[in-house]
Amino acid sequence: MPERDLHYLAELAAQLRVDSVRAAAEAGSGHPTSSMSAADLMAVLFACHLRYDFDDPDNPANDQLIFSKGHASPLLYSLYKAAGAIDDAELLSFRQRGSRLEGHPTPRLPWVDVATGSLGQGLPVGVGVAMAGRLERLPYRVWVLCGDSELAEGSIWEAAEHAGCEGLANLIAIVDVNRLGQRGPTRHGWDTGAYARRFGAFGWHTIEIDGHDPGQIDYALQDACNTRRRPTVILAKTRKGEGVLEVENREGAHGKALKDPDKAIDELGGQRRVRVEVHKPDQGAVPFRFAEKPMSLPSYELGEKVATRTAFGAALAALGTACGDVVALDGEVADSTKAAAFEKEFPERFFEMYIAEQQLVAAAVGLQARGWRPYAATFAAFLTRAHDFIRMAGVSRASIRLVGSHAGVAIGEDGPSQMGLEDLAMLRTTYGSTVLYPCDANQAVALTAAMADLEGVSYLRTTRGDTPVIYAPGERFPVGGSRVLRQSPGDRATIVAAGVTVHEALAAADELAASDIPVGVIDLYSIKPVDTAALIEAATTTGNLITVEDHRLEGGLGDAVSDAVGELGPRVVKLAVTGLPGSATPEEQLADAGIDRRAIANAVKRLL
Amino acid sequence: MPERDLHYLAELAAQLRVDSVRAAAEAGSGHPTSSMSAADLMAVLFACHLRYDFDDPDNPANDQLIFSKGHASPLLYSLYKAAGAIDDAELLSFRQRGSRLEGHPTPRLPWVDVATGSLGQGLPVGVGVAMAGRLERLPYRVWVLCGDSELAEGSIWEAAEHAGCEGLANLIAIVDVNRLGQRGPTRHGWDTGAYARRFGAFGWHTIEIDGHDPGQIDYALQDACNTRRRPTVILAKTRKGEGVLEVENREGAHGKALKDPDKAIDELGGQRRVRVEVHKPDQGAVPFRFAEKPMSLPSYELGEKVATRTAFGAALAALGTACGDVVALDGEVADSTKAAAFEKEFPERFFEMYIAEQQLVAAAVGLQARGWRPYAATFAAFLTRAHDFIRMAGVSRASIRLVGSHAGVAIGEDGPSQMGLEDLAMLRTTYGSTVLYPCDANQAVALTAAMADLEGVSYLRTTRGDTPVIYAPGERFPVGGSRVLRQSPGDRATIVAAGVTVHEALAAADELAASDIPVGVIDLYSIKPVDTAALIEAATTTGNLITVEDHRLEGGLGDAVSDAVGELGPRVVKLAVTGLPGSATPEEQLADAGIDRRAIANAVKRLL
Repeated sequence: MPERDLHYLAELAAQLRVDSVRAAAEAGSGHPTSSMSAADLMAVLFACHLRYDFDDPDNPANDQLIFSKGHASPLLYSLYKAAGAIDDAELLSFRQRGSRLEGHPTPRLPWVDVATGSLGQGLPVGVGVAMAGRLERLPYRVWVLCGDSELAEGSIWEAAEHAGCEGLANLIAIVDVNRLGQRGPTRHGWDTGAYARRFGAFGWHTIEIDGHDPGQIDYALQDACNTRRRPTVILAKTRKGEGVLEVENREGAHGKALKDPDKAIDELGGQRRVRVEVHKPDQGAVPFRFAEKPMSLPSYELGEKVATRTAFGAALAALGTACGDVVALDGEVADSTKAAAFEKEFPERFFEMYIAEQQLVAAAVGLQARGWRPYAATFAAFLTRAHDFIRMAGVSRASIRLVGSHAGVAIGEDGPSQMGLEDLAMLRTTYGSTVLYPCDANQAVALTAAMADLEGVSYLRTTRGDTPVIYAPGERFPVGGSRVLRQSPGDRATIVAAGVTVHEALAAADELAASDIPVGVIDLYSIKPVDTAALIEAATTTGNLITVEDHRLEGGLGDAVSDAVGELGPRVVKLAVTGLPGSATPEEQLADAGIDRRAIANAVKRLL
Repeated sequence: MPERDLHYLAELAAQLRVDSVRAAAEAGSGHPTSSMSAADLMAVLFACHLRYDFDDPDNPANDQLIFSKGHASPLLYSLYKAAGAIDDAELLSFRQRGSRLEGHPTPRLPWVDVATGSLGQGLPVGVGVAMAGRLERLPYRVWVLCGDSELAEGSIWEAAEHAGCEGLANLIAIVDVNRLGQRGPTRHGWDTGAYARRFGAFGWHTIEIDGHDPGQIDYALQDACNTRRRPTVILAKTRKGEGVLEVENREGAHGKALKDPDKAIDELGGQRRVRVEVHKPDQGAVPFRFAEKPMSLPSYELGEKVATRTAFGAALAALGTACGDVVALDGEVADSTKAAAFEKEFPERFFEMYIAEQQLVAAAVGLQARGWRPYAATFAAFLTRAHDFIRMAGVSRASIRLVGSHAGVAIGEDGPSQMGLEDLAMLRTTYGSTVLYPCDANQAVALTAAMADLEGVSYLRTTRGDTPVIYAPGERFPVGGSRVLRQSPGDRATIVAAGVTVHEALAAADELAASDIPVGVIDLYSIKPVDTAALIEAATTTGNLITVEDHRLEGGLGDAVSDAVGELGPRVVKLAVTGLPGSATPEEQLADAGIDRRAIANAVKRLL
């Protein structure tokens, strides 16, 4: 590399360090030292290898850059400034109320597709973006800047396994091995060989370099670009706080503004006005065109007994036909979730993620960032494995569709480890989420189809066993709605149920009616948003609500109902799973949990 | 190995297969084929290497056996029968209501310490048990039977990293590489070398064998026992359904009873009456004695401003002095959670688990299985990473103490990725859990100490910023209690708060009192179990409850209150975080989320 270029890159890197120090100093917090270690790496990437049009973030040929070490946001924002995307005044708004430059990057910025800050997530999401690149046959690259501390997260190795086995050569991880975590040395310190052995074992091309040597960095980035059939990881030995003696390679300097920023800026050679011209991608790349055909959804006859998971699978396959942008992801249980019906029709848009639920959800987030409409399905219980990824998908405003099968004690003999009993609570707390829980096959079809157009994280909860079809084919079930299944002027209470408990509620209502106790029944298939109007009407009319759900008492349907009618103050009695189930038949389980027809009828009688 | 021994081992393995087939046939479900592949491995382990006293499961020198592939429970129960621990009638109660022999093993059985069935958890928990063995200086070994499919879980590699780096030579993983997952071939099929490269890179001793050859198995198990300073993984190539042509090495035979069990039993040579004499551990091992000293808890002066996380750290260190069985685990944030105060005093009982929250919780589960009292601390937000492990800890009836710092929007500038806003909901749904949320330092101390004696999963939520001390040193805060902080006969509403919002509620109450609107204030520091009596009294007296929490609207304090008073039907207005925060100061965050003093006062006025 010519001396002139080396000088320019050193100047650019120095400016990135200075600006990282300045931004954190102005904010009084942030991570300047974690930014300074990676400044040379990113300077060379931006100046020599990145292909990105900052004026057109939606250009389909743009490279994708993910800061998996999201706390190095001062560096990212300093890069934006050097590239002319933001000005100095905005840089100095870092971490202030209303600023787009948050403590950790979020998609409030047009150049950020996914939020990071929970470590170990950027690389798995990058795997999803790289999967999209292969699907779209577009030549963009996915660059992921990782910290060394975050390599302890298992999700990193789920990503390493998937990318390695799939040979995602368009994925390049750059690890800033600065040897210091938040509270002290990392496990492997500067032993980049330890990381190389691990990534190598997972099938990656590995390159170990000095992360402050522009020549070595340039060579490594080029080598990564030239590598075929394998993802590349560049393991760059760096010094945290590089360039400022007060903090360089010192413990106790994590996540703090520098004590004497003016002195540090002097030490770094003062402010500069270096611009970096990021290469735009080659012209002529056309966005991938998704095929669109008329929708023809499956339907089921009234009275037929069909599992909602089966209807989901059939609906997903039908959606696949109509919408070329629908993709499905599986956690090695597609025969159980019935996502296998989609695989059969569209193997090229079906992704087997194996038993790696974090990568399952992360891949969905990555795919949606490129405009695909992912449905990711596994057992409801095992979605808890990906809770942090779901949480962060909410922060990313990602539009992903999650499907959890085998909900509740109704699965029967398999026992508590396989029962999704916490999923409604988990998905309800997710920012901007939608939570749907069908009770029959036609409703499951309608809700599966409705999810295709939902924004944010949406969730469909399905049931293992067969349930009778109670809705005619083609009926509409708007998100946020509910269905009144039993109602009479003399109703003394209203039972609110969803999924399997709808059928128990109907049986209980019939039994109570025979004992001259008329009660209403509402099918609350949309748990979030919830049909407040219908619930308030029921509460006003009967004054007594009995909620019944195949889920824990906390955070599920019952709480959604209480919340909707709370300011009105009706009596609300909740039936839910409170004990620890063992093995038993589905019927025994519902009875033991106190959520079957008999328990409901008894609860009504006790209440009245 | 002499011919006679080989014959015996073959007979024992055949019986294990026959009994697995019989148990599943009787139940009409279960995983006989996944049991049959590992029968030879377990036959040799039980006959030749395991040291276990079935009559005395609490013998401290017993080896520990964990079926990480919990679905192979028919094999485990067949082993119990062969060892004389259960009889044939009980074996055939498999998966029936009331039986201890659940679909997946749980501690309802005296020989099972931790529940499995959610894949990828047994090995990380085994790491915790092995850590305990080192701490106790006892010579027991931890044997973990893994499936090959579950090696896709990132948690396996968190475990591999911790055990490899710590050199846990008392940990031996046996992987049943039967090449078939639930829905088809695994990623690596019979390529045991692929797994060996991975484990080897993480520092493990690896042995690849034919998993149906007793001689090879015996050699490998002995080799593992003789290995020093490294954990061992035995990668055993096996055939799923081995021994029965109908299912052997065939796809589509996962998780089902065999179609023709009688024919299968014939093919396996019929029923046998083979007993296995499991060697008891050497006598003379004495249980580790935990030191006990008088308790001297820290205390804070009224009016002092101290973060509850700081008080937690000081209390934990004090507990460490008094109770020799208290251990602390950290997710590489001990300087933030303040668990570092414990590390300083008791480095030998402090475990740095690095940024691997699944392994963090799993290690706690493993340690408590050996009688230790673990406190595992990280940011509240990042406990979501371990949700499935927390869920399964509930199923295991494990007594672990989790501490989540940096709760809520009150952390300020770091932004949403670092804010614990879903933790109360997550922990409330956990079976048998306790959820505590102190508002001042003395209360934090008391609750930290109270957790030491709690059974099940308990959770302490701490706050980043300083809050004023409002309770005198030494005051008592029973779990399940609450504190009435403002109350007058004319109260027109009661504000229910916890943690940071207590201080906002007090300020709001003072402001309202100045406007002649007297309101009560309850500090609901025990969110689960909740003080139903106090809430009902408040609801009865004022008829209006305003809940305010630094947590999402769903599943937290507000829902706990609604649930407690639901059958009474007061008006409940909930203030909670509903939007997506960005960066801002703590005060701005509370205001923006509508949970500060002004928002509370306005809500009261609006309600009245």
